[in-house]
Amino acid sequence: MFQQEEYDVIVVGAGHAGCEAAAAAANLGSKVLLVTMNMNTIAQMSCNPAMGGVAKGQIVREVDALGGQSGIITDKTMIQFRMLNRSKGPAMWSPRAQSDRMRFAEEWRTTLEQTLNVDFWQESVTGIVVENDTVVGVKTQLGIEFRGKSVVLTNGTFLNGLIHIGEKNFGGGRAAEKKSTGITEQLLELGFETGRMKTGTPPRVDGRSLDYSKMEEQGGDEVPSKFSYLDTPRLVKQRPCYITYTNAEVHEILKEGFEKSPMFQGRIKGLGPRYCPSVEDKINRFADKDRHQIFVEPEGSSTVEMYINGFSSSLPEDVQYRALRKIAGFENAKMFRPGYAIEYDFFPPTQLSLTLETKRVKNLYFAGQINGTTGYEEAACQGLMAGINAHNKVHGREPFILKRSEAYIGVLIDDLVNKGTDEPYRMFTSRAEHRILLRQDNADLRLTPLGHALGLASDERLFRVEQKQRETTEVVELLKNFAIEPSEINALLEELGSATLHERTRAINLLRRPNLELEHLTRTLPNLTLALAPYQPDSLEQAVIAIKYESYIEKENQQAARVAELENFVIQGRLDYQQMPALSHEAREKLLKVQPETIGQAARISGVSPADISVLMVYLGR
Amino acid sequence: MFQQEEYDVIVVGAGHAGCEAAAAAANLGSKVLLVTMNMNTIAQMSCNPAMGGVAKGQIVREVDALGGQSGIITDKTMIQFRMLNRSKGPAMWSPRAQSDRMRFAEEWRTTLEQTLNVDFWQESVTGIVVENDTVVGVKTQLGIEFRGKSVVLTNGTFLNGLIHIGEKNFGGGRAAEKKSTGITEQLLELGFETGRMKTGTPPRVDGRSLDYSKMEEQGGDEVPSKFSYLDTPRLVKQRPCYITYTNAEVHEILKEGFEKSPMFQGRIKGLGPRYCPSVEDKINRFADKDRHQIFVEPEGSSTVEMYINGFSSSLPEDVQYRALRKIAGFENAKMFRPGYAIEYDFFPPTQLSLTLETKRVKNLYFAGQINGTTGYEEAACQGLMAGINAHNKVHGREPFILKRSEAYIGVLIDDLVNKGTDEPYRMFTSRAEHRILLRQDNADLRLTPLGHALGLASDERLFRVEQKQRETTEVVELLKNFAIEPSEINALLEELGSATLHERTRAINLLRRPNLELEHLTRTLPNLTLALAPYQPDSLEQAVIAIKYESYIEKENQQAARVAELENFVIQGRLDYQQMPALSHEAREKLLKVQPETIGQAARISGVSPADISVLMVYLGR
Ligand SMILES: Cc1cc2nc3c(=O)[nH]c(=O)nc-3n(C[C@H](O)[C@H](O)[C@H](O)COP(=O)(O)OP(=O)(O)OC[C@H]3O[C@@H](n4cnc5c(N)ncnc54)[C@H](O)[C@@H]3O)c2cc1C
Ligand SMILES: Cc1cc2nc3c(=O)[nH]c(=O)nc-3n(C[C@H](O)[C@H](O)[C@H](O)COP(=O)(O)OP(=O)(O)OC[C@H]3O[C@@H](n4cnc5c(N)ncnc54)[C@H](O)[C@@H]3O)c2cc1C
Repeated sequence: MFQQEEYDVIVVGAGHAGCEAAAAAANLGSKVLLVTMNMNTIAQMSCNPAMGGVAKGQIVREVDALGGQSGIITDKTMIQFRMLNRSKGPAMWSPRAQSDRMRFAEEWRTTLEQTLNVDFWQESVTGIVVENDTVVGVKTQLGIEFRGKSVVLTNGTFLNGLIHIGEKNFGGGRAAEKKSTGITEQLLELGFETGRMKTGTPPRVDGRSLDYSKMEEQGGDEVPSKFSYLDTPRLVKQRPCYITYTNAEVHEILKEGFEKSPMFQGRIKGLGPRYCPSVEDKINRFADKDRHQIFVEPEGSSTVEMYINGFSSSLPEDVQYRALRKIAGFENAKMFRPGYAIEYDFFPPTQLSLTLETKRVKNLYFAGQINGTTGYEEAACQGLMAGINAHNKVHGREPFILKRSEAYIGVLIDDLVNKGTDEPYRMFTSRAEHRILLRQDNADLRLTPLGHALGLASDERLFRVEQKQRETTEVVELLKNFAIEPSEINALLEELGSATLHERTRAINLLRRPNLELEHLTRTLPNLTLALAPYQPDSLEQAVIAIKYESYIEKENQQAARVAELENFVIQGRLDYQQMPALSHEAREKLLKVQPETIGQAARISGVSPADISVLMVYLGR
Repeated sequence: MFQQEEYDVIVVGAGHAGCEAAAAAANLGSKVLLVTMNMNTIAQMSCNPAMGGVAKGQIVREVDALGGQSGIITDKTMIQFRMLNRSKGPAMWSPRAQSDRMRFAEEWRTTLEQTLNVDFWQESVTGIVVENDTVVGVKTQLGIEFRGKSVVLTNGTFLNGLIHIGEKNFGGGRAAEKKSTGITEQLLELGFETGRMKTGTPPRVDGRSLDYSKMEEQGGDEVPSKFSYLDTPRLVKQRPCYITYTNAEVHEILKEGFEKSPMFQGRIKGLGPRYCPSVEDKINRFADKDRHQIFVEPEGSSTVEMYINGFSSSLPEDVQYRALRKIAGFENAKMFRPGYAIEYDFFPPTQLSLTLETKRVKNLYFAGQINGTTGYEEAACQGLMAGINAHNKVHGREPFILKRSEAYIGVLIDDLVNKGTDEPYRMFTSRAEHRILLRQDNADLRLTPLGHALGLASDERLFRVEQKQRETTEVVELLKNFAIEPSEINALLEELGSATLHERTRAINLLRRPNLELEHLTRTLPNLTLALAPYQPDSLEQAVIAIKYESYIEKENQQAARVAELENFVIQGRLDYQQMPALSHEAREKLLKVQPETIGQAARISGVSPADISVLMVYLGR
């Protein structure tokens, strides 16, 4: 780096958000500078060594479908894969991988190094440079000024980070890493609002000191799948996780530490992630539960270090230690590092537009934990979107915004920008009203054409999608026409407890029955197996989902279309809310603050009622 | 970690010294706790990604021969190997490897994890616990007290580390890492002396931005050798380094920065390593030289990051950058990280005894950069020795001390303890008066029997040494007896420009001729090839060295024996120097301070004259 030239996009921070942002903008053709505190910690997983999970796995698939890197990197470095919720409907299927922490970071770094147009600079950014309400660069601790047409801030948990363990606390962005100062202070002066959040992490222990015979082993899927729609390597050797439980004795010991708890004693001001509570929070809030589940997860393919999922804590380290040792299998456990909590600054995301650009300073983007989210996947997808939009903006292209009916990414950003968040925002399937459409199996169908049109998803990706689409249609057609005689199939149906046939029918009709899968048919009907042989497994799966869930999908599509109509009413800059006495007081305030871009967006602002929406529609001449 | 139990050895810091100390003590059977700030930076190479080199390569071989790990880890992770000084005598041959920085650290961590008896704790140590002039544990930032029968401090460059770049400076133990406070302050209170040193590192650049066609390529050896005497893997794929030069323009630009140089302007108080000067130092001190050599070295097998060996600098980063770009091949260079200097506390090593235990606090050992040395190899060997001696002490065993005639390690520790050092101490062959004995080819013969007797070097190591010894003797015998007729050999001798034979002679006589190698003989004498076929290359090499350098080695051995006699006069605690008026004033002072253990050691103290030694001998009854 360091040339006097001007970059198109400067990305601050190389966490999950920053890495995706840098890769996306560079792959689109922007000249990118990635400034990060420490080049040895690029894409560090701050907490658990895992990617995906419920709703999060869908996000990784979406990032991949658009041409992002997280899926590919996870595939290359995972040590276990499970498709969660297989027994539920396909909208719930969620891929999850256990990652090798070191390899994950290394692979990201290699990927970025091999990305043309990405320059690196190792240093702490202490402020941005603003001219005429537009960001034009960043300043570093050494006083270097880098010029850039746009800037993406992805500072994660580092802004004025404060680490708590029991009664002690000290500055840091993560254990043993420095905090970042200067940026919050400057943004406050520029008129931004800021808040404080907290998160936490469990202790790490020495796997050699655990007795796994007292735990349940949890292996990966027998036939592990993967995240990327590209031809990434299949996982061969998996490492198991283990399940154990806390108990009354554990809880008693933890309670002894409550009087020194930074959370219970009010030293921590920021709100933590409701759905990743610390273990002390769990025993406090659910006092009637006499045990909580603990997942013991390896940190890599060969390390003995284990992550104690479910035991996040900021109690004094000796309390953590003594409590841990009362868990079955942990009698002789040795700790490597204590759990801790960290408080950090975030910026309420209602200050952003849907492109993740700030409303206050032009060409300045925020992505990741800085926006009040939690999780690698949530961070990664924001980084991707900010990187794309920063590139598009400085190249005079259209904003790239995903609808709530198109992607979890759309839901996430829409929620953040319109509803804001007081506590760390994590994705759930329940947040997505169109979740039946937003499946992990069709992220490519939904998004790769968009990613390809952007210039981010490769031709190969589009080719694969078109092939999958074509094959899916053909397979549905084939199953529609494939005739089955009662004699061929009744034995199977009886075995499955499904009504037997009295006359010939088409394969499609049988597939609509619950509990009857394509594998059942192919097992019994060699001709069908033969007919389907030319098709890829993904296409077969897609066809079956289309058949089985046709009516749901249909209904959901209509719903989405109705919502889309509202989205088409662009209002950005066209309405003067001050001059609309018919609006409720609250609605006027919120609309003024959020400045929604469409009626659809306005309708989702909490405090804006359907009556208010009617008022707006009238003003817009409808 | 963290059990209430007492450890045998607590090692503070997991750099090169700390890792060897922990591994050695644990492999000897001690219960070891390794406390380090950040478990993700175990065995980080702070500066150049390389192990070995002149005199340093010999040290790595010695560490390996004793049963240490650095050689094995280097072999497993190197990307280039060269035997330096091949054209000189075998005492000068020095193995040097280019390492993959990430793999090196990862391999060390894996090795330690797989070492029984090593527990880990990630945190900053802020002080030691002393009772009755004996160390009994350490205290951490969180206030945890770990109890241990002995403590090895290996804090490297972290004690009150202060990083300088141009006019800016900030606390840190390495770029982007925290400094360590508390230990120096406490040791001062306990009566220790402390001093300040400095070292520096060059900028790192993006290899993609360099034009290698303007540089000389420097590949590895055609048949790469390795460090360990064990059966470590042979290096297959090597990465080249490149050589280029500074020039007048580069020097002019650098000079512009002198007025902001922390070194020239006196902001840096500590002395730097004389033999690793910064580039500004070089152009300042050698003003008549119009260019300096620059080695461009890859940081790993796949990364694009390059290390600019020879361009260490603490000038302002923009000066570094502009100067760099004037070097041939660097016209478009992009920097990743700037060079910087770091100042840190060390403890003058005259406060130690030859076991590396401090004289002031029992069972407290210092190893590595904290003793005023510089270099990974110097640190590693001290760690090994401190680990061994801490183990021996707490188990009531004899101290383990190497003589100057036995090992570079002996020279290093003896120099430190007896002469002390004002500037970072680096090993050179010239420091070893018996260097003809201390070769890289015979470290196993010299030291493995000692390491095996300790219980550190494995049976396999001893077996290999005994085999090599046996074979060497046999080969020498064989060459003594192998008769060669003039007709068989004169053509070759003529070709080599060596005097032809007039009568039959023995192979050994020909081998004593300079420029005549064993390969010459075997090429011409099929019978000899056949006779030598059963022997390993190492044994052949050893035999040839024994033959060619017989008289030197003989002389050196006698010299060493004479010195050893002096070493046998143990004086520790037996003499009251205050009561010896015949001693010179200076000698009395130095002897009081150093408290030498033997007459040999006393003789090497600067300021103690041969006359003073005679006085001591008289008092000892000789
Ligand atoms: C202790 C802890 C516990 C967590 N627990 C959970 C959990 O239970 N569940 C969950 O889903 N998520 C958890 N997380 C959150 C998860 O780690 C983050 O959501 C995710 O890493 C955010 O990604 P990011 O890219 O926004 O930021 P980060 O991953 O934090 O990366 C920020 C990057 O920016 C760099 N940086 C910061 N400031 C500067 C600056 N001024 N100049 C240059 N570089 C800078 C940093 O060095 C780092 O590389 C936890 C995080 C921490 C620290
Ligand atoms: C900028 C720089 C440039 C250098 N340049 C050269 C050079 O040109 N040539 C050369 O030969 N050598 C050079 N060196 C020196 C070389 O890196 C050291 O000699 C070698 O690393 C020393 O090894 P060590 O084990 O003593 O300490 P280090 O490698 O420094 O390791 C110290 C370890 O201790 C840990 N630690 C420190 N304090 C605490 C604490 N209180 N609690 C817990 N853990 C702690 C640290 O985290 C680290 O893991 C350079 C070093 C630096 C930093």
